[in-house]
Amino acid sequence: MATHKLLLLPGDGIGPEVTGQVEKIVSWFEKQGLASFALERGLVGGAAYDAHKQAISEGDMKLAQDADAVLFGAVGGPKWADVPYQHRPEAGLLRLRKDLGLFANLRPAICYPALASASSLKPEVVEGLDILIVRELTGGVYFGEPKEVVTLEDGSKRGVDTQVYTTGEIERIARVAFELARTRSNKVSSAEKHNVMKTGVLWKQTVTALHAKDYGDVELEHVLADNCAMQLVRWPKQYDVIVTDNLFGDILSDVAAMLTGSLGMLPSASLGAEDPATGKRKALYEPVHGSAPDIAGKGLANPIAMIGSFAMALRYSFGAGEAADRLEGAIADVLGSGTRTKDIAAPGANAVSTTEMGDAIVKAL
Amino acid sequence: MATHKLLLLPGDGIGPEVTGQVEKIVSWFEKQGLASFALERGLVGGAAYDAHKQAISEGDMKLAQDADAVLFGAVGGPKWADVPYQHRPEAGLLRLRKDLGLFANLRPAICYPALASASSLKPEVVEGLDILIVRELTGGVYFGEPKEVVTLEDGSKRGVDTQVYTTGEIERIARVAFELARTRSNKVSSAEKHNVMKTGVLWKQTVTALHAKDYGDVELEHVLADNCAMQLVRWPKQYDVIVTDNLFGDILSDVAAMLTGSLGMLPSASLGAEDPATGKRKALYEPVHGSAPDIAGKGLANPIAMIGSFAMALRYSFGAGEAADRLEGAIADVLGSGTRTKDIAAPGANAVSTTEMGDAIVKAL
Ligand SMILES: CC(C)[C@H](C(=O)O)[C@@H](O)C(=O)O
Ligand SMILES: CC(C)[C@H](C(=O)O)[C@@H](O)C(=O)O
Repeated sequence: MATHKLLLLPGDGIGPEVTGQVEKIVSWFEKQGLASFALERGLVGGAAYDAHKQAISEGDMKLAQDADAVLFGAVGGPKWADVPYQHRPEAGLLRLRKDLGLFANLRPAICYPALASASSLKPEVVEGLDILIVRELTGGVYFGEPKEVVTLEDGSKRGVDTQVYTTGEIERIARVAFELARTRSNKVSSAEKHNVMKTGVLWKQTVTALHAKDYGDVELEHVLADNCAMQLVRWPKQYDVIVTDNLFGDILSDVAAMLTGSLGMLPSASLGAEDPATGKRKALYEPVHGSAPDIAGKGLANPIAMIGSFAMALRYSFGAGEAADRLEGAIADVLGSGTRTKDIAAPGANAVSTTEMGDAIVKAL
Repeated sequence: MATHKLLLLPGDGIGPEVTGQVEKIVSWFEKQGLASFALERGLVGGAAYDAHKQAISEGDMKLAQDADAVLFGAVGGPKWADVPYQHRPEAGLLRLRKDLGLFANLRPAICYPALASASSLKPEVVEGLDILIVRELTGGVYFGEPKEVVTLEDGSKRGVDTQVYTTGEIERIARVAFELARTRSNKVSSAEKHNVMKTGVLWKQTVTALHAKDYGDVELEHVLADNCAMQLVRWPKQYDVIVTDNLFGDILSDVAAMLTGSLGMLPSASLGAEDPATGKRKALYEPVHGSAPDIAGKGLANPIAMIGSFAMALRYSFGAGEAADRLEGAIADVLGSGTRTKDIAAPGANAVSTTEMGDAIVKAL
């Protein structure tokens, strides 16, 4: 039985609590003899800054490079509002994405039938929603240079950010989207602002050309990012896979997640390119929700997004599709039995704690 | 009685139909002797390209410079998908914004009680919603240089867009937001991505400093743009005035508009700096909706966004607050009497045409 190298980076806020629930599941799989893990633990974000004065240490970066998968909690909080910019908590996450080459961020937005009423949207608009945002994650305005604030002669300042995309970067993320669409409803919506941005012009051209060359069987539509945001609110079920750049993906995936009323439930995967020698990809899995410092340490956090992220790791990084099915089945059973953390409980209804939810899922395995 | 110089730029798609309804209202005010207008008409977008091979002619730019206000319909449509990039329909609008210095784009998102059920959100989430997005309109990634696609040695391409903001640009838009908040619920939410963008860092610093200096009486909060998009979907009533940059404003204002279920009802104003000599500002008024080529020419368009834009022109450019009140009152009366265009009618209910809606509003004046 292969041993899977898994690095846990719980981070800040509710990160450690929800990661703790995954550790129970890891133990359960090991005790049953169903899988074997080599677990490492590291620090990221504010926790890493407190320990090492940087948002992730070189040692933990090395562990991340060596791992088969990284499980990432969440970073940030008011405690680190004033740390130097290059050491802000988010810098740890951005460095992981960039240095591991995790260019493909998959963010499913699924509306669980039992939770449709938790959405701020009308039930008929979101019930049964199952869309996937494929976000480019190592390019665009996040990493382009120059990226600076300079002081001008008169003492005022000028800030600059640069969005850069190459044909190659666009092709590889579009390929991921087309391949995934084939396993789903076979439709890709490509979102950009070609009417204003030159990177949008190149994006649209490149996606169109790749589609004509290799994916003529997949339905492709182009949509302006602002209109896409609108359409997500109006009638999200028109979408299957949405492929978009780093910055639009940041916003559109948050809108899509919020539609489902299940922010505490949504996992995500960030994948690198396949190594031609080993067939492996670097990968990081994280919940879509953030560090939620206001509820940290109170046992209120919903661990399902984190546990679901681990299920994605089982499936995509560890080749353990059956174990992933089993885990996702356990989550569904627990929800089906009416067990709810506070974020997804009806107002006034009983809610379980983070740990109780974790235990319930282990029990249902 | 002062004569107001008004330039009509109906543009493409449903633009001419909805602008036509404003012309009736202009005539009514003139016939009643309540106001006097010097009307000019010009072409913009695809219509201008067809006539002059450019998205707005020099002559029409001159008329826009001389006008007290420009009333802009909408631009674009599939017919012009293949015109050279610099002549695409949107280029006309972008040039008007830039050359007239219209840095402050005000986009109210109001949920009319009678129409709350048209929203895809639950009625309790949107009923009574009244927020204002103040979007910076002449800077950011829309206009920064370099902005280009270059071909690399290996034949692949590289696209670049540049987002630039100076202290001065941020201060002047923030000032508009603070001043407007004082006339409303006295709260400003400033949205950026300072965790990823240097322009966001400068944005946050500059807004904070201006607040401390001149607007300590106004409540100020900072929100990340991705979170703001989420919060708009979750509980939009937490906002009063949202101030943000050109690109985030594009997306956030579209989300906000869609929440209201009244896309065909929302006007907007784009204002320049006050001329210290005359006390006047250049201004352009346009509906939030686009050119909707699919329904153009069918009498299906709702002219209320356009008529409401004219009401804003009466108030902000022509110093005719009473006339504006009267026009907005007429719109409210017509809606109150149950008159509906198709976009806001209940499914299966009777709907009036664009012209009939225009006539009903004139009659209610
Ligand atoms: C924390 C932040 C840097 C990050 C981003 O902007 O990508 C987050 O919003 C996300 O979407 O993962
Ligand atoms: C038409 C387009 C250039 C424009 C923009 O991106 O600003 C539109 O989306 C808007 O919001 O007015």
